[in-house]
Amino acid sequence: MAKVLVPLADGFEEIEAMAILDVLNRAGNDVVAAGLNGLEVEGANTKLKVKVPTLLKDVNIDEFDLMVLPGGLPGAEYLAKSELVKEYIRRLAQKGKLVGAICAAPWALKEAGVLDGKAHTNYPGFEEKTGKEGYIPDKKVVIDSNVVTSRGPGTAICFALELVRLLNGEEMYKQLKEGLLADYC
Amino acid sequence: MAKVLVPLADGFEEIEAMAILDVLNRAGNDVVAAGLNGLEVEGANTKLKVKVPTLLKDVNIDEFDLMVLPGGLPGAEYLAKSELVKEYIRRLAQKGKLVGAICAAPWALKEAGVLDGKAHTNYPGFEEKTGKEGYIPDKKVVIDSNVVTSRGPGTAICFALELVRLLNGEEMYKQLKEGLLADYC
Repeated sequence: MAKVLVPLADGFEEIEAMAILDVLNRAGNDVVAAGLNGLEVEGANTKLKVKVPTLLKDVNIDEFDLMVLPGGLPGAEYLAKSELVKEYIRRLAQKGKLVGAICAAPWALKEAGVLDGKAHTNYPGFEEKTGKEGYIPDKKVVIDSNVVTSRGPGTAICFALELVRLLNGEEMYKQLKEGLLADYC
Repeated sequence: MAKVLVPLADGFEEIEAMAILDVLNRAGNDVVAAGLNGLEVEGANTKLKVKVPTLLKDVNIDEFDLMVLPGGLPGAEYLAKSELVKEYIRRLAQKGKLVGAICAAPWALKEAGVLDGKAHTNYPGFEEKTGKEGYIPDKKVVIDSNVVTSRGPGTAICFALELVRLLNGEEMYKQLKEGLLADYC
């Protein structure tokens, strides 16, 4: 079992956030959703609020094996501009732990300085923010050492499954992929 | 713009619920998430609570063009056993309005009596509840007149997109499918 941190800011993409939280929970991990600015966080499209158990500033980042960022706007921009988020990303990356981001959120990885020289993907057009060098437009999920990136709502389950494969192994990956009916991943 | 009702019960499948809510909102519909038993509803896998603006009993069902049920357990069982949910399903179906359900939730359509003689799909195995007659195991989404069904988390975006196609037309369907990066639908 791994420990996973999922920061949520107002304007998060709901499908992406829930795919990450849901699939990583299904794999048996200890998954912590943490609010950037409050304990109720509003989705970008539904405007529904999700209650989270903790604030991002109150977690002990050194306990985590993975931090993974959902996209959506303005959520991903809030993450990319947060000094705390960038500090957490750098701390995990320096220790060789996993960092992941999808859609617009690889922008935060770039801002934290962990994308330089790394193959990555993002929502089409956000390579303006993440850097065109190393940008891969035609893969659902890109893994370059400890950095995992993906493209958008339609690739979110595949992204979460690849994180499961890295954290929980091939057997769990296969079992969940079948259970989720995500044969296109 | 159509008016869409999404009942949520504790133990709803998060990816399915959010795909439905998110995609139907993106298409510009008036989408109402309504709690079966409370204004905070807990997800099946994440145990996170989502705040909803109304109780199911307090909506005027005659205002809606579509009611669509997410799966997940025990959420789908609560829906299938709710007299109110069955009454709403029958009322919409009798008026020729759309009813939809995914994963375990087509069970509620069966209980309401609107699946008889209808082609449908569901999460593998739940044809024990929905009826083997008319069950189609190899399509992501099955549409039979005003009844739309789908299979699980991995088909949820495709399901929501088909509902958009029925409610909002082919152009909106294509635009959202492209924007969601859901080329497998």
